[in-house]
Amino acid sequence: MTNAEAVVSAYWEACEARDWAAFGRLLADDVVYHLPQTRERITGRARFLRFNQEYPDGWHLTVTRAVGSGRHAATWISCVHHDAQLDATSFFDLDDAGLIRAVTEFWPEPYEPPPGREHLVERY
Amino acid sequence: MTNAEAVVSAYWEACEARDWAAFGRLLADDVVYHLPQTRERITGRARFLRFNQEYPDGWHLTVTRAVGSGRHAATWISCVHHDAQLDATSFFDLDDAGLIRAVTEFWPEPYEPPPGREHLVERY
Repeated sequence: MTNAEAVVSAYWEACEARDWAAFGRLLADDVVYHLPQTRERITGRARFLRFNQEYPDGWHLTVTRAVGSGRHAATWISCVHHDAQLDATSFFDLDDAGLIRAVTEFWPEPYEPPPGREHLVERY
Repeated sequence: MTNAEAVVSAYWEACEARDWAAFGRLLADDVVYHLPQTRERITGRARFLRFNQEYPDGWHLTVTRAVGSGRHAATWISCVHHDAQLDATSFFDLDDAGLIRAVTEFWPEPYEPPPGREHLVERY
């Protein structure tokens, strides 16, 4: 496991444990959290911690993939919330000290496939 | 750049160039392409190449992030199609020869943020 992979694995482990002290220790003071789908941005460790602490509870996550090298990493997690299951993909930038200074996160939702490719695909 | 990063960078470069011969040389014979949002799966290099070749053209992509280590990689691309812009996130598994044997891809769409976090976020 690379250092970047260890950092993002610890990030999700702390998140699942609701261990916000451990979670906060992985973040740079000026961390920025980007949600491109809603065009929302949260700036700074204190606000980002509060966002996570205030987020309605009842969810559990597991990490499907964590890959990282140098100052970049990406994860694919699976999140279960009230019997609904949703995947999220996240891209992380680390600073020189190995702290997380940027997270860009996507929450893709299910949709119906467009017609015209039934001859190539299986549904599962 | 790690070897896994070079492979997935070449994959997107070939895709953008519509160089399907170069694209095909990066794929394992038994490559599987997964689209979890539609629960679609395409199995085998020939079908996956045909899926890409038959896909309605008019799009252009740029790679925002490519990160990889060992046999895993992830990318975040930005795709423009008929004045619409959509990001995609992809997770790659490589085989022992460095060929792509699995791609899992997400196409997250914009949505309106839920209420209750306006005190923490900026919109951009």
